[in-house]
Amino acid sequence: MLEQLKESVCAANLKLKEYNLITLTWGNVSAISEDGKYVVIKPSGVDYDVMTADMMVVTDLEGNIVEGNLNPSSDLATHLELYRNYPEIKSVVHTHSRWATATAQAERDIPCYGTTHADNFYGTIPCTRHLTAEEIGTEYELNTGKVIVETLNGLNIDPMSIPAILVRKHGPFAWGSSPKKAVENALVLEECAYMAFIAKMLTDKQVAPAPQELLDKHYLRKHGANAYYGQK
Amino acid sequence: MLEQLKESVCAANLKLKEYNLITLTWGNVSAISEDGKYVVIKPSGVDYDVMTADMMVVTDLEGNIVEGNLNPSSDLATHLELYRNYPEIKSVVHTHSRWATATAQAERDIPCYGTTHADNFYGTIPCTRHLTAEEIGTEYELNTGKVIVETLNGLNIDPMSIPAILVRKHGPFAWGSSPKKAVENALVLEECAYMAFIAKMLTDKQVAPAPQELLDKHYLRKHGANAYYGQK
Amino acid sequence: MLEQLKESVCAANLKLKEYNLITLTWGNVSAISEDGKYVVIKPSGVDYDVMTADMMVVTDLEGNIVEGNLNPSSDLATHLELYRNYPEIKSVVHTHSRWATATAQAERDIPCYGTTHADNFYGTIPCTRHLTAEEIGTEYELNTGKVIVETLNGLNIDPMSIPAILVRKHGPFAWGSSPKKAVENALVLEECAYMAFIAKMLTDKQVAPAPQELLDKHYLRKHGANAYYGQK
Amino acid sequence: MLEQLKESVCAANLKLKEYNLITLTWGNVSAISEDGKYVVIKPSGVDYDVMTADMMVVTDLEGNIVEGNLNPSSDLATHLELYRNYPEIKSVVHTHSRWATATAQAERDIPCYGTTHADNFYGTIPCTRHLTAEEIGTEYELNTGKVIVETLNGLNIDPMSIPAILVRKHGPFAWGSSPKKAVENALVLEECAYMAFIAKMLTDKQVAPAPQELLDKHYLRKHGANAYYGQK
Repeated sequence: MLEQLKESVCAANLKLKEYNLITLTWGNVSAISEDGKYVVIKPSGVDYDVMTADMMVVTDLEGNIVEGNLNPSSDLATHLELYRNYPEIKSVVHTHSRWATATAQAERDIPCYGTTHADNFYGTIPCTRHLTAEEIGTEYELNTGKVIVETLNGLNIDPMSIPAILVRKHGPFAWGSSPKKAVENALVLEECAYMAFIAKMLTDKQVAPAPQELLDKHYLRKHGANAYYGQK
Repeated sequence: MLEQLKESVCAANLKLKEYNLITLTWGNVSAISEDGKYVVIKPSGVDYDVMTADMMVVTDLEGNIVEGNLNPSSDLATHLELYRNYPEIKSVVHTHSRWATATAQAERDIPCYGTTHADNFYGTIPCTRHLTAEEIGTEYELNTGKVIVETLNGLNIDPMSIPAILVRKHGPFAWGSSPKKAVENALVLEECAYMAFIAKMLTDKQVAPAPQELLDKHYLRKHGANAYYGQK
Repeated sequence: MLEQLKESVCAANLKLKEYNLITLTWGNVSAISEDGKYVVIKPSGVDYDVMTADMMVVTDLEGNIVEGNLNPSSDLATHLELYRNYPEIKSVVHTHSRWATATAQAERDIPCYGTTHADNFYGTIPCTRHLTAEEIGTEYELNTGKVIVETLNGLNIDPMSIPAILVRKHGPFAWGSSPKKAVENALVLEECAYMAFIAKMLTDKQVAPAPQELLDKHYLRKHGANAYYGQK
Repeated sequence: MLEQLKESVCAANLKLKEYNLITLTWGNVSAISEDGKYVVIKPSGVDYDVMTADMMVVTDLEGNIVEGNLNPSSDLATHLELYRNYPEIKSVVHTHSRWATATAQAERDIPCYGTTHADNFYGTIPCTRHLTAEEIGTEYELNTGKVIVETLNGLNIDPMSIPAILVRKHGPFAWGSSPKKAVENALVLEECAYMAFIAKMLTDKQVAPAPQELLDKHYLRKHGANAYYGQK
């Protein structure tokens, strides 16, 4: 079942490697079926070198395995919480990409410092609060999803306009309208984290956010009804 | 028309990728025809993997499409403003290369700290002022070109001796006497931005500019009537 | 003798190169035989390009050469000291990987700042004390092993739960249950050192360690009786 | 003439590219003939992609071209000054490698902070004084060589035990007993400059030099009569 989705989820996982966002077997991509009933996700701890589409695991939205002989990614419950809360999210990506992860370790948001960020993220990429010891102790991966949802909702963020977040002391999750798009968002997040680091170092961390009108201009020339970037 | 120019513009765009100056589809190269009447530019948002010379778009100096089925780069108006003001500029490049872009985000010029810079740029590479909300709101890309021209003219800079600039909170534009040369200038700019970062960090940002006589020596041994670098 | 172990030691040495942990001929991997009587180690100063399994040197636990025409790695005595003290260590790796080595030069431990570290190292990766002039003067490589053992024992560290260390002013040693695993630990160490640097720079070195419960959760979901990461 | 030397000089130039020490056509390698009468050097400004051994230029020790149709590297006079002063130097390399060059821009020496440095350089790698306006104005490249010699002699440095230097505001020169060795020294220099940067950043520039006994141990286990690293 869902053979085409398995292909695109597998391809997106391999793209993470090509984009240098992955060390060893860290990271995972999932996607939800068009009818919103099933999720296809990378198996846990499998080498990228030997990964094929038919290894992808199919689950329902409660995490029950529907098809597949391998264990799904241990972060499955985080992905599912995002799909349950935001039907517009069609694919979720988790990596330990270096600059985004280190920024999460430093417990810092990534403000919009320029147009590279504004082209893809319509405002500050937030860092979640700490999970409590209780949240870590029981259903940790589910609670990781819940703290992402809590952060987005608390900041009144449309997840499609800021399609990534940093989980404090852990690392980034990104998402999008397709596996390809979610992986691209993970890549741009990494680049923005790197550039933000440089800009902070150059200014003793006094770098100013980009003006709101520049953020509006760049985000909206690429997204929404009046976008004019790219081809029709 | 202009098939040869399309080939060299396409090749220069691909060179950006080879030089690691490009993420995804960001960045664009254009060139002006020998008679100064037409501009050949990369189409907007096309993957570098599938880009071919016949996808290049031909416009006149007002931006009217003369040939091509694809939308030109959304930064076309910036390129045109440079061609209209400086007939000596034969090719323009825009990237979001990491170190130059982050320096623009930090709102810093790139002074000449050594001979690597001096070999290619005859003085400080400036960072423009902010565009106003009005300039961003209407004809943003044209106004980006205008603020580049304003900055170069205000500092009395010959654009061929300092063939790059940082647009504040946005990123670098570079140019040159050919697509190949413009792309090389974009590459050297990136390297100079990186080295300037390192030198600043090593000195608590107290790094001194290179002495004027060293700047003169290195720039002039590679450029102008008395150059003696390279082959005849 | 031990042809299979030679193959896996040679492959692990080459993996160091693939992982960009090695410059020139620096670095070495060894492994101990199943019966605990012999050690297979890289020859000293041989180019990775020409290295083959049959060049590997076999010694006993006192460092006497049992098989092989080449000199063993000059760090052999350090490896042997680890095998003699910790029978659970089956393979040892030494590199001069950039970020771990520079952290050793800076004489800093690598605290656990996030889950990337916690997934692989169950606590702070320590930096040893200086060797004394006497320890350097006589049996330097043996004394390097002794100071590693002293540090691990002094901190009451199980070497299998924190399978790497920084030797002050020198660089990293890592180990594991197989050559493949030891090399992976060297890779993760390098990534953790890099991320720790970034997090420190972003916080004026005020970055807090990850909470103990997060360290427990991530380490124990990958290691030990209740691990649930990966495949069975 | 000197066909074999041309081959090894050409190969060493290409190795610079492979080691990522070179951007565009920057950098050059030369070597002196066994009889000490001729120098073989890279031509000026030639692309590494098309470089072949028969393009190498042969000069005498005064810089007169003895064979070759191309202009020699513009840095020829610097190389010659080193050969004339130090007969033990058989090959000279100049690059603009990023970290060494930026350290020269920051006007900083590279002290020995650990064994990676000590394995190859027996003490601090110095940064020269500024050239005066007069020295830059006339015979600049020769005077660059002279200031290198002045620095080495002034610090009583044996050029074979510290086979590299930073020319202030310019970049590194390295040398060795063969083109292969000189290029390796340029590579190790770059790595040491990078690691020194990291160690400085981690310690607010308070990093201590490696103890003298550690420097002695590591340098002398690889060099001199009692060396025991590598194969005989």
